[in-house]
Amino acid sequence: MAKLVVRCFTLSLDGFSAARDQSLENPFGTNGIQIMEWAFATKTFRTMFGQDGGSTGIDDSFAASADVGIGANILGRNMFGPRRGPWRENEDWKGWWGPNPPYHTPVFVLTNYPRPSIPMEGGTTFHFVTEGIEVALKRAFEAAKGLDVRLGGGAHVIRQYLRAGLVDELHLVLTSKLLGAGERLFEGTDSISKMYECVEYRPSETVTHVRLHKRA
Amino acid sequence: MAKLVVRCFTLSLDGFSAARDQSLENPFGTNGIQIMEWAFATKTFRTMFGQDGGSTGIDDSFAASADVGIGANILGRNMFGPRRGPWRENEDWKGWWGPNPPYHTPVFVLTNYPRPSIPMEGGTTFHFVTEGIEVALKRAFEAAKGLDVRLGGGAHVIRQYLRAGLVDELHLVLTSKLLGAGERLFEGTDSISKMYECVEYRPSETVTHVRLHKRA
Repeated sequence: MAKLVVRCFTLSLDGFSAARDQSLENPFGTNGIQIMEWAFATKTFRTMFGQDGGSTGIDDSFAASADVGIGANILGRNMFGPRRGPWRENEDWKGWWGPNPPYHTPVFVLTNYPRPSIPMEGGTTFHFVTEGIEVALKRAFEAAKGLDVRLGGGAHVIRQYLRAGLVDELHLVLTSKLLGAGERLFEGTDSISKMYECVEYRPSETVTHVRLHKRA
Repeated sequence: MAKLVVRCFTLSLDGFSAARDQSLENPFGTNGIQIMEWAFATKTFRTMFGQDGGSTGIDDSFAASADVGIGANILGRNMFGPRRGPWRENEDWKGWWGPNPPYHTPVFVLTNYPRPSIPMEGGTTFHFVTEGIEVALKRAFEAAKGLDVRLGGGAHVIRQYLRAGLVDELHLVLTSKLLGAGERLFEGTDSISKMYECVEYRPSETVTHVRLHKRA
């Protein structure tokens, strides 16, 4: 059966997935991007950005498998862009990723404000869902045609799906970076802690990969 | 110069150092003790509890070095015992650890309620400090006679020392256990995050050891 999965979701040592003050220049908030250094060092990420080289060990293996078997993605509005509130007239923002985003699937963006879908190069189409997380998930499963759906984040969106008991698997990446403040993944999630068990604990030289599955 | 250090302070995946509902039976709160499994598996801990065997790898190395160079300890009241409020008349509680506690140094217990010092076997003496964290630290440094002072916890006490800029080094142990709720180490500690840098990141097969030093 198709699953809802979180992959490569990275946390600071103090538990944050992004720092404060997200902006066009700082998609992860001020100094927040440092938690992603592990990923940027991998061959998979470097290739994605048109660069040579990069590591080919444990971190790369996880980075490379992040979109394997994924037929659709779900993102929160803040992962799609830095702006808040209604979309502007003649809106030209099409995500952080340029003309060919790294999703290559339908992407369902949770928002309070309707907007027409945006087809991009490489198979990505952004759809904007205003009817909440369950409708977004239903549409994503339909679009995925039997493949899994990846929940990209941010933390606030993942928490909503966790509380609703809808997330089947999480792959988290623990780093040694301190962000001090920002968005916490595990906040008000006490009711869900018993629902998951650790199925893999795999440290690399720089971060620790933890995979959690929902208990049967 | 003598330092104030935190060693082997263990966190759940969701950032807690203890679960809710600490009690005589559950010093780490309900199901909280699971985060210490890494330590109980080490030769150092097993020896401390009079048991044979145990691991001798990375985890044991950190466990064994936890009290090296330590001349005094500081604990919060909740780490000393499960009771709250004034000490009872004819108080017989002398800590969780039996007649010969594993400190073997003077131990300064932060409390709001005065109580005479308690000499124990093996070099441990419990002193009760009602004048706050700075007085406790001053007394601990004096008692340590040039050695370092170890801050045992709990999280609430470590946070107080962190906010006051008094902690020189932290060794944290990251686990893959979910506690759901409890005491968080990194809560309202945004001002301190820039003060520390990671000087060692050392995963074992079961947990990840992270050492932080205060920046010069």
